[in-house]
Amino acid sequence: MNLSLKDALKITRSCEEKAQEMNVPVVITVVDEGGNYLSLHRMDKAPVGCIQISMGKAYTAAVLKTATDKLSQVCQPGQELYGLQILNGGQFVVFGGGFPLMKGNEVIGAVGVSGGTVAEDMQIARAGIEAFGE
Amino acid sequence: MNLSLKDALKITRSCEEKAQEMNVPVVITVVDEGGNYLSLHRMDKAPVGCIQISMGKAYTAAVLKTATDKLSQVCQPGQELYGLQILNGGQFVVFGGGFPLMKGNEVIGAVGVSGGTVAEDMQIARAGIEAFGE
Amino acid sequence: MNLSLKDALKITRSCEEKAQEMNVPVVITVVDEGGNYLSLHRMDKAPVGCIQISMGKAYTAAVLKTATDKLSQVCQPGQELYGLQILNGGQFVVFGGGFPLMKGNEVIGAVGVSGGTVAEDMQIARAGIEAFGE
Amino acid sequence: MNLSLKDALKITRSCEEKAQEMNVPVVITVVDEGGNYLSLHRMDKAPVGCIQISMGKAYTAAVLKTATDKLSQVCQPGQELYGLQILNGGQFVVFGGGFPLMKGNEVIGAVGVSGGTVAEDMQIARAGIEAFGE
Repeated sequence: MNLSLKDALKITRSCEEKAQEMNVPVVITVVDEGGNYLSLHRMDKAPVGCIQISMGKAYTAAVLKTATDKLSQVCQPGQELYGLQILNGGQFVVFGGGFPLMKGNEVIGAVGVSGGTVAEDMQIARAGIEAFGE
Repeated sequence: MNLSLKDALKITRSCEEKAQEMNVPVVITVVDEGGNYLSLHRMDKAPVGCIQISMGKAYTAAVLKTATDKLSQVCQPGQELYGLQILNGGQFVVFGGGFPLMKGNEVIGAVGVSGGTVAEDMQIARAGIEAFGE
Repeated sequence: MNLSLKDALKITRSCEEKAQEMNVPVVITVVDEGGNYLSLHRMDKAPVGCIQISMGKAYTAAVLKTATDKLSQVCQPGQELYGLQILNGGQFVVFGGGFPLMKGNEVIGAVGVSGGTVAEDMQIARAGIEAFGE
Repeated sequence: MNLSLKDALKITRSCEEKAQEMNVPVVITVVDEGGNYLSLHRMDKAPVGCIQISMGKAYTAAVLKTATDKLSQVCQPGQELYGLQILNGGQFVVFGGGFPLMKGNEVIGAVGVSGGTVAEDMQIARAGIEAFGE
């Protein structure tokens, strides 16, 4: 199953509603299973510097098939994947806010959110994931 | 005046309607006056390789304050701006499909469309510009 | 409100005066809200390697809407945003010397100073911020 | 002899006066003999996309010790230096608007102007060169 633009926008809308409720303007990116962009929305007043971070979170979650917060620990100095964050032309984000979108056991895309604290970004991204699961 | 996400999506929606009518799936990017992304929609079946081209068209139209088709001629071998296409980290697109968004005499952003022929991309982008002008 | 070149040079001049008084030659960059350069002055004897650092500090402060010294702690190994320093093509600087320029609650640009110690750079940048506030 | 910031700003000021007289807002960059930035001024309303072009023109003129308009011909398809424009990470600009600053027979820096047509940029840059020669 391929993720459609309609799916991407449904996810994005749920993220936007959550972000508005929390009063945290963010950038929301949705990618397909290949890590290629399906949609990007920058909410008014979200920091411009969060555009690339949002894109990187979605990309990372899709192409490594993992929530980006799972990478924080293993990329620390002395840990197993230390150095990962430098690879792939600097597109990998190794802190929370990117989540894969699953269909059964398959990763079919990902969402990445940036603009608030890591905890806020994760909460907003999860609202999108839940909407997709419905 | 700053372009809002709402403005960007209104423009995008008009491009999508035109693209659907023409049966040409495209990627549509809207940027602010500084060339920073506001929104990106990749329609189902639009070529993945057109994502960066769409982004580049919108970026170019905003930061050079010109429709990108105006650059085709002047960037040809032997012409005045030959070589421009290589500058700015390869972000400049010098064929049609990117248009600045004007408010009076001011460029306040731009839209970039990629997925069809240059003529089709331009026609679709223009539908967005017109919707914005209304 | 957009930052003008005149604003940028007023800020720069105050930084230069402070730097001369402290006998610390620096590079001073001012950017607009989108992170695009408005002005750059390299004082005589400021290290050439500080040009990009100064540019990066101003860029970071504008696009992430934060003083760059606020990023030092959170980007350390084990901290929340570890890995941020590698993103955005290596343009983010995560130590002090970059400050956003505010108009009310809005970030309308930023100044970045590099050439001395972090403490000196911050002191010089602050002189520019104060001049702007007057 | 090294170019000072004072020299750079004298050159810049003359370019700005010329640009104002011609009503063509431009970006003006001055570099030292090593191609490293001494100053950059973006005049109000100059296109953001001209920042890198202005920087590239000054860089190219200094490090290749030539006016950038001299490169147009030789970088054309079939000509001697075809391909030059792609080298050095895409920093070389091969159309007019960059001029070396001479002291006797020595290149001690360069000025690069971007924002208008190539002819306008060259005229504005030359005003800076002349001011420096006085």
